[in-house]
Amino acid sequence: MKKMEPKSSQGLKIIPLGGLEQIGMNITAFEYEDSIIVVDCGLSFPEDDMLGIDLVIPDVTYLKNNIEKVKGFIITHGHEDHIGALPYVLREINVPIYATKLTMGIIENKLKEHNLTNNTKRKVVKFGQSINLGQFRIEFIKTNHSIVDAAALAIYSPAGIVVHTGDFKVDYTPVFGDAIDLQRFAEIGKKGVLALMCDSTNAERPGFTPSERTVGRTFDILFEEHKNTRIIIATFASNVDRVQQIINSAYKFGRKVVVEGRSMVNIIETATNLGYLSIPDNTLIDIEQLKNYPDEKTVIITTGSQGESMAALSRMAEDNHRKISIGPTDTIIFSSHPIPGNEKAVTNVINELLLKGADVIFQDVHVSGHACQEEIKLLYTLVRPKYAIPVHGEFKHLKAQAKIARELGFAKENIFILQSGDVLELTEEKAQVTGKVPVGDILVDGLGVGDVGNIVLRDRQHLAEDGIMIVVLGLDGADQLVSGPDIVSRGFVYVRESDELMDEARVVVNEAIEGCLGRGISDWGKLKGSIKDSLSEYVWRKTKRRPMILPIIMEI
Amino acid sequence: MKKMEPKSSQGLKIIPLGGLEQIGMNITAFEYEDSIIVVDCGLSFPEDDMLGIDLVIPDVTYLKNNIEKVKGFIITHGHEDHIGALPYVLREINVPIYATKLTMGIIENKLKEHNLTNNTKRKVVKFGQSINLGQFRIEFIKTNHSIVDAAALAIYSPAGIVVHTGDFKVDYTPVFGDAIDLQRFAEIGKKGVLALMCDSTNAERPGFTPSERTVGRTFDILFEEHKNTRIIIATFASNVDRVQQIINSAYKFGRKVVVEGRSMVNIIETATNLGYLSIPDNTLIDIEQLKNYPDEKTVIITTGSQGESMAALSRMAEDNHRKISIGPTDTIIFSSHPIPGNEKAVTNVINELLLKGADVIFQDVHVSGHACQEEIKLLYTLVRPKYAIPVHGEFKHLKAQAKIARELGFAKENIFILQSGDVLELTEEKAQVTGKVPVGDILVDGLGVGDVGNIVLRDRQHLAEDGIMIVVLGLDGADQLVSGPDIVSRGFVYVRESDELMDEARVVVNEAIEGCLGRGISDWGKLKGSIKDSLSEYVWRKTKRRPMILPIIMEI
Repeated sequence: MKKMEPKSSQGLKIIPLGGLEQIGMNITAFEYEDSIIVVDCGLSFPEDDMLGIDLVIPDVTYLKNNIEKVKGFIITHGHEDHIGALPYVLREINVPIYATKLTMGIIENKLKEHNLTNNTKRKVVKFGQSINLGQFRIEFIKTNHSIVDAAALAIYSPAGIVVHTGDFKVDYTPVFGDAIDLQRFAEIGKKGVLALMCDSTNAERPGFTPSERTVGRTFDILFEEHKNTRIIIATFASNVDRVQQIINSAYKFGRKVVVEGRSMVNIIETATNLGYLSIPDNTLIDIEQLKNYPDEKTVIITTGSQGESMAALSRMAEDNHRKISIGPTDTIIFSSHPIPGNEKAVTNVINELLLKGADVIFQDVHVSGHACQEEIKLLYTLVRPKYAIPVHGEFKHLKAQAKIARELGFAKENIFILQSGDVLELTEEKAQVTGKVPVGDILVDGLGVGDVGNIVLRDRQHLAEDGIMIVVLGLDGADQLVSGPDIVSRGFVYVRESDELMDEARVVVNEAIEGCLGRGISDWGKLKGSIKDSLSEYVWRKTKRRPMILPIIMEI
Repeated sequence: MKKMEPKSSQGLKIIPLGGLEQIGMNITAFEYEDSIIVVDCGLSFPEDDMLGIDLVIPDVTYLKNNIEKVKGFIITHGHEDHIGALPYVLREINVPIYATKLTMGIIENKLKEHNLTNNTKRKVVKFGQSINLGQFRIEFIKTNHSIVDAAALAIYSPAGIVVHTGDFKVDYTPVFGDAIDLQRFAEIGKKGVLALMCDSTNAERPGFTPSERTVGRTFDILFEEHKNTRIIIATFASNVDRVQQIINSAYKFGRKVVVEGRSMVNIIETATNLGYLSIPDNTLIDIEQLKNYPDEKTVIITTGSQGESMAALSRMAEDNHRKISIGPTDTIIFSSHPIPGNEKAVTNVINELLLKGADVIFQDVHVSGHACQEEIKLLYTLVRPKYAIPVHGEFKHLKAQAKIARELGFAKENIFILQSGDVLELTEEKAQVTGKVPVGDILVDGLGVGDVGNIVLRDRQHLAEDGIMIVVLGLDGADQLVSGPDIVSRGFVYVRESDELMDEARVVVNEAIEGCLGRGISDWGKLKGSIKDSLSEYVWRKTKRRPMILPIIMEI
C-alpha cells in the first residue's frame, strides 16, 4: 500500500443506512465534521413474509436528526435499488440531488409521479466533473453497468479519499459511450486512496463478465434463425443498451418494433429524448399498427422478464392482453436471468407460453451488469486503497469479496464487512467501528409509509395461514347475554360444507360464555380470553388449524 | 421401429391423474377392460398462492367410480411425489400396494403414522420379478435414482407392453447395489414395446448426469481440507447413498457421526434395518455425546438443505437449536441443490451461518437423480417404443423430451404430451386421446382434506394482502340502531397510530347506516352492501388499500 501524507487527525465517518447484508436499499452517509453527503437512496422489494407490502425504504432518522449537516444526495445510477426511496425520503430530507444526465432523467420521471419536481433541487453532473459540498468534493467517474450513465464516485474529504464503485462492470466494448475510466481509477489510486467501497454482487463468480455487446451478436443469430415468426423479447426496462441492440437487430432484419409495458415505454422515451438511444426512422410503430404488418416483420419489446404478474408478457401468457395473443407463430426470448426469488414465477410464464405453441428461448441471451472476481481484482489493483469495504450484497457476497481482498494481500484488520447502521470512522492511521445509528425497514403499503409494522404483518401472516373466526355477542348493562354468540369465519373452512363443525363451535363458545357469566365473571378481557381459549382448543383438536379468533362484545 | 404382432384390437387406456405439467403428484391409471392398475400415488407441495396449505393430493374420483376394477398400487420409489398421497387415497381406494423392499419400508413408516398398517395389503417385489393383476402383468426393473431401490416398470397388457421409467438416472457405478438393468430394457425392447413413458425432469440438460459416487470423492477432499473443524452436512433425508458416503468419509477420517432431524433419523433407521446402509460399529453417536468429542472429530448429518424453516439446520442457523450452536469452528456443507422456489430460503440460511463465522460450502457437492439428455436417448434407443409419452415434469420439460424424441426420429404423431386427466387409448394400430376424466388438486390443511377450496384460498389471499375490517352493529326488531357500529381491524394498519383514520371510518359507516335506515331500507343484505361500499371507497381513497370488509349485524 502506498504511504499517504496525513491530512487531518479528524475522522471521516462512513455510515451505511441500508444495503449491507441485503440486496437493495442502498444508501450511505459520509460525514466529516459539519458535513454529510448521502450516496444513493434506494428501495428494496418486500421479503416473502412481508405480506401485502409494496416496497421497503430505509429508516433515515439519523439524517433527520442531523438535517442541518446534510448537503445533498449523490446518485450513482438510475436503478430502483439506488433511487427508489428518493420520493419518500425527500419529503423529510429536502436537499439537492446530483447525478448524471440519464440518471437524473429517470429520477425526474419519479419526482413527477410524486408531484415533487418543483421543490427538489437537481444538478446534472458530467463524468470527470466534481462538485463541492461542505467539507467534501465528489468526482463522478465513468463506469459500465446494465444501465447507461452509471458512475463511480471519488469522495475527497480532509481525512482522505474514498472511492465508491456504485454497481459496475468492466466493459471494454460498451454499446453506448465509453468503457469504464480505468485510467482515472489508476490516477486517483496513485494519489493514495483511504478506502475502496466496491460492488460485491458477483464476487462469488470467477472470471470476467462478458461485454453487453455479446448479447447483440446473440440477437443477430436468433433473428437469423427465426425469420418466419414474430419475435417477442422481454428484458429489463432500464437496460437501454439492450433495447438499443434489439432495435439494431430489428432494423438489420427489416422488422418494425413495438414497445409494450408502461415502464418500458417511459424509459425508452426518456432515453431517446436525452440522446441515449438512437432509433432509425420508421422503425418504431404503435401497437395498433401491428395488424398492418406480417408477423415475421415485427418485434415486440416488452416488460415481464421476471414473471411479474401484472407485466405485459405475463398478461400475454395468460391470454389477458388486449392487443397481443400468443400462438405457434411466436418466438419469445427472455433476455434476462430470474432475480433470486422470481424463478418459479418466470418458469410459470415460460410454461404458459410453450402451452400456446410458442417457441421460447430463455437461456444465454443475457449478461450480468456486475463485476466478477477478475474485475474486482482489477479495480483493487488500480485503486490500491488502504482499507477495503465490500458493499452491495448479502453477507455471502460481502464475504466473497473480503476473500478476494485477502488474496490480494489485504490484512484482515483492513477489511471491513459492515452492517447497516455501523459508524466506521477512518483516519490515515486507523479505521474502526465507533458506533451504531438507528436503521431499519420502513414498509410502504399503498399510500401508507411506515403504518404497517411487525404487529400488522404478524396478523396478516396469521390470517393468511388459517383465516379468522369472529365471535360476536351482545351483553346488556347487567352483563346478561342478550344477543349471539354468532360465529363468522373467513379463510378458515368452506362453511357450507362444515355445518357440523360450526354448530359444535357455537356450543363450545356458548359454554365458555355461560361458564364465565355463571361464575359472575364480567371482566370483558377475561370473557374474551375464555372464548378464545376454548374455541381455539376445540378447533385445533378437530382440524389441527389455528385460525385467528376474535371475540367482539357489544354493549347493548 | 420393430413391427409387433397384433395381440388384440382392444385398447389399453393410460390415464394420468396427476403429475403432468407439474412437478409432483405423480399418479397414473392403466386400464384394460375390467382391470385398472395405478402407478404411484404422490403428493405435491403447495404453490405460493395456496396459503396455509400443507400439501396437495390428487383427485381420484375416476378410481372411486371404477373401484371394482382397481387391482393395486404399483410404486416405483419412495419419494413423497410418488408415495405421499397414499395415506389419504387408501382410505377411499383400499387395494394392495406393490413395491420394492426399501420403498415399502418407507411406505410402512407413513402408514404407521396414519394408523393404516393393519388394513393395507402390501407385497414386496424384487427386481426381475413380475406380479399379475387382472389383465396386467407388471415387471419391476432395476434403475438408479437419488433414492435406492427405484424401479422402472414393464407393464404387459393384451394390447402390448408399456415401459414406465419412474424417476431414473443411469449410474454405472452406484454406491449401493447394481447399475440400472440396461440389458433388460434392451431385451424388452427387442420384444416390441408399444409405449415408453420416460422421466423428463432433466430433459433440458445436455449430457450425462454424473455418478452418485463422484460426490463421495468430493466428501473425501472436503474432509481432508477441513481437518480442524466440525463438519455439518445437510442433505435430503431420503438419499441413503449420500448418507452412506458421508458415513464412509467420516469413518475414514476418524470422525463420529450424529444424525439430526426427525425425517433423517427415521430413514436411516429404516434403511439400516433393511440392509441398505452399513454403518461401522462405534461410528454413530447420540447427539448428547457430542460434547465428549472434540469438534474436529465429529460430523453432523442433518435435514434442512432446502432452507425449510422448521428443519434442524435452519434452527441451528437461527440459534434456535437445543443442542447445537454454530460458530467459527464449523464447516457446513450443503450437499443439495435448491429445489425451484426454495432459492431464497436456502440463501437466507447460508447468510445466517456465514454471519456466525462458519465456513459454508454450497456448490458442487451434489449430483442430480434424474437422467439428462444422453441418458434419455439411451433409454429410447434400448426400448425402441412405438409411441413416446414424456412424463414427470412441467410442460417445458415434457416439451424438451418431445424434442429429443423428434431428434431420434419419432414422428410427431407418435409423441404424446398429455395433460392430467387425458385418456390415451393405445392399440397396435393407433394411439389417440379419446376422453377426459375429472382431475384436480385436493388441498390438505391440518386434518382437513378438501375442505379448503378456491373460496377459502381467495379469502386468505385477500386477508394476507390488506387484512380485515369488521363492522359490528346491533338492530332491534324495529330496525333501529341500538348498538355500534364498532369497527375492529386486524392486519390493516397499526390502530394505535391511526386514530384519525379509524374515527373517520366510523363516521363514514354511520352515515351509510343512517342513509339506509333513514330511507327505510331494512334489507340486511342491502344495508351490509352499503356499509361495504362506502367504507371500501373511503379506505381506498385514504390508503390505496383494499382490506376485506365484513359487516356483521346482530339482532337484539
